[in-house]
Amino acid sequence: MENKIITISREFGSGGRYIGKLVGERLGIPVYDKEIIAKVAEQTGLAKEFVESKGEYSPSKSMFAYGFVVRNNLGESLEDYLHSIQRKIILELAEESSCVIVGRCADYILKDHPKRLNVFIYSTPEDKIKRIQTYLGGDNDADAKRKMREMDKKRSINYNYYTDQKWGDVRNYSLALNSGELGLDACVDLIVRAAEEL
Amino acid sequence: MENKIITISREFGSGGRYIGKLVGERLGIPVYDKEIIAKVAEQTGLAKEFVESKGEYSPSKSMFAYGFVVRNNLGESLEDYLHSIQRKIILELAEESSCVIVGRCADYILKDHPKRLNVFIYSTPEDKIKRIQTYLGGDNDADAKRKMREMDKKRSINYNYYTDQKWGDVRNYSLALNSGELGLDACVDLIVRAAEEL
Repeated sequence: MENKIITISREFGSGGRYIGKLVGERLGIPVYDKEIIAKVAEQTGLAKEFVESKGEYSPSKSMFAYGFVVRNNLGESLEDYLHSIQRKIILELAEESSCVIVGRCADYILKDHPKRLNVFIYSTPEDKIKRIQTYLGGDNDADAKRKMREMDKKRSINYNYYTDQKWGDVRNYSLALNSGELGLDACVDLIVRAAEEL
Repeated sequence: MENKIITISREFGSGGRYIGKLVGERLGIPVYDKEIIAKVAEQTGLAKEFVESKGEYSPSKSMFAYGFVVRNNLGESLEDYLHSIQRKIILELAEESSCVIVGRCADYILKDHPKRLNVFIYSTPEDKIKRIQTYLGGDNDADAKRKMREMDKKRSINYNYYTDQKWGDVRNYSLALNSGELGLDACVDLIVRAAEEL
């Protein structure tokens, strides 16, 4: 029987990562998030910090930056190389067992997988700001708002560059849930319910 | 206790109207779709056909068309007048009882309602073309594709004009479901499940 794969794409501060974790627990299947960073670091010899910062947040090559990128002898930039390894690891994980994969363009990488559910978690700005402050500390709305915009901007540039799709466009996903309106528990229930149909 | 309102916005051919009907049946609450057309026609004296064609599909005023619009003595165009009556009727229906409302910018009109669930139903082009051919007849993919694009274009122009939001932008909705991937029955289950949380 084909493995069931649930990919979770999420806005920064939407609680998507936590929802992914709970979905994995409810379904009794592994959740891959930071684990992918460790695997990519292991296979490439790159530092975990570098993999973390470039695996989801790499800037698109701008006209100016392009000329200064380090390239290997295949003409790949270090970022492209990292992405090709990340892609290979995600495909291997999907082969191995049913699982939840958070972020890292997994929705796109696995879009032709026969049993995959692509989920997008988003939320209202107020809800995200509150969550960002709870987890990162601070009580300055402007700081949280800046962080939120910056992270989503980087994720979206990275996604748009490596997938040629638009990040957050509902048509890339099987379902999209507003965690601020629905609540985290309801989101988990809805995803588990949809996964049963796969 | 506050009424629960479920608004369903949908791509043409996505099965959203049918999903709305089944959700209403499952929850035992009325579903307003074409009924709104009849009410608007009754209150305005306009022909049902006119109300149907302009209530969801009116073109935005282009630079050229603007000068040729019929206006009442408040300076409203006939389309704006129709929309203001439609808006009033939707607000009244939401006051009356829990219900499902399909289309007609109800998600926007009721966005501050304390117990509303805004749903967007979309689907894959292949699924929509198949459904359009089943219901409208014909087996020419190009015809169905043209109809699909035309209807969604008109809905989106109408929505963007009357709501200053972007039609199909996930952030307007509580949840968005891909009916082609999930299946109509699963969509109904997920909406009913989410409505229980309201």
